[in-house]
Amino acid sequence: MKNSILGGRFLPVVIACAIGASGAALAADPDEIIDYRQGAMQVTKYHFSTIADMLKGKIEYDEAAVKKHADVVQLMSTLVKDEFPEGTDALAGETNALIDVWDKPDEFADKVAEFEETAIELEKAAESGDKARLAAAVKDVGSSCKACHDDFRQDDE
Amino acid sequence: MKNSILGGRFLPVVIACAIGASGAALAADPDEIIDYRQGAMQVTKYHFSTIADMLKGKIEYDEAAVKKHADVVQLMSTLVKDEFPEGTDALAGETNALIDVWDKPDEFADKVAEFEETAIELEKAAESGDKARLAAAVKDVGSSCKACHDDFRQDDE
Repeated sequence: MKNSILGGRFLPVVIACAIGASGAALAADPDEIIDYRQGAMQVTKYHFSTIADMLKGKIEYDEAAVKKHADVVQLMSTLVKDEFPEGTDALAGETNALIDVWDKPDEFADKVAEFEETAIELEKAAESGDKARLAAAVKDVGSSCKACHDDFRQDDE
Repeated sequence: MKNSILGGRFLPVVIACAIGASGAALAADPDEIIDYRQGAMQVTKYHFSTIADMLKGKIEYDEAAVKKHADVVQLMSTLVKDEFPEGTDALAGETNALIDVWDKPDEFADKVAEFEETAIELEKAAESGDKARLAAAVKDVGSSCKACHDDFRQDDE
């Protein structure tokens, strides 16, 4: 079932078994997974933006903290591929994820992989103590976020 | 300024500098920190409950996955102590965190430390492959969540 981009908010439709022809039943209901997914994005955003703010001098640079923040971003990047099971699209609950996440899985997987790779470099850069390397890594992670969001997230702002 | 338990929802009050006499200005605004904090709790809940569901047989037990979930819970547990800066209480934004988080900091710190310790054991138990040990660890982490929430989170359900 192809879906065009649907605007606005959606009433949760709890018919998870009918949505998404593939594989295992969801262990958690769609709303729970969506809440988790959005929470994961919030966590990633916070730790990533804190590194960026430290590099900008908006907050005091703390090398140990930067490493910790990078560790969190890197761990979170490894979870994204499991945050979009079948049955958690906008017909199943309130999410900005576009149907292309599931209709264009290879392209989506490429975006996720890019995030994972840039996050690994972010962690290495933080570990190295080389601020220029870190700044470049921050830029690349940010670009990977944007690239995925441009194609796979509904922009409602 | 002592606050009693305030019910209901609060309009965000962006006067962070006036709230919380101590220390550094917030790098992010209170709403951003609250969103992050709540996201962190969602992430923790999801990974923790997935381990519990695997032990219950609600989803297929996967030893490698259990280790990964425990790693996430353990990492998340180390972040809690930095999720409650001054100026992110219920007068600053929409949060269920009770003012005792800041009025009873030693007791709050004890609860956080308990979570961190039980999460370390959760990770070791997952690593050991010993399901009985893991079940006990799950129980202890769950108890630590409840103990903190009972005293420091407003119950609005």
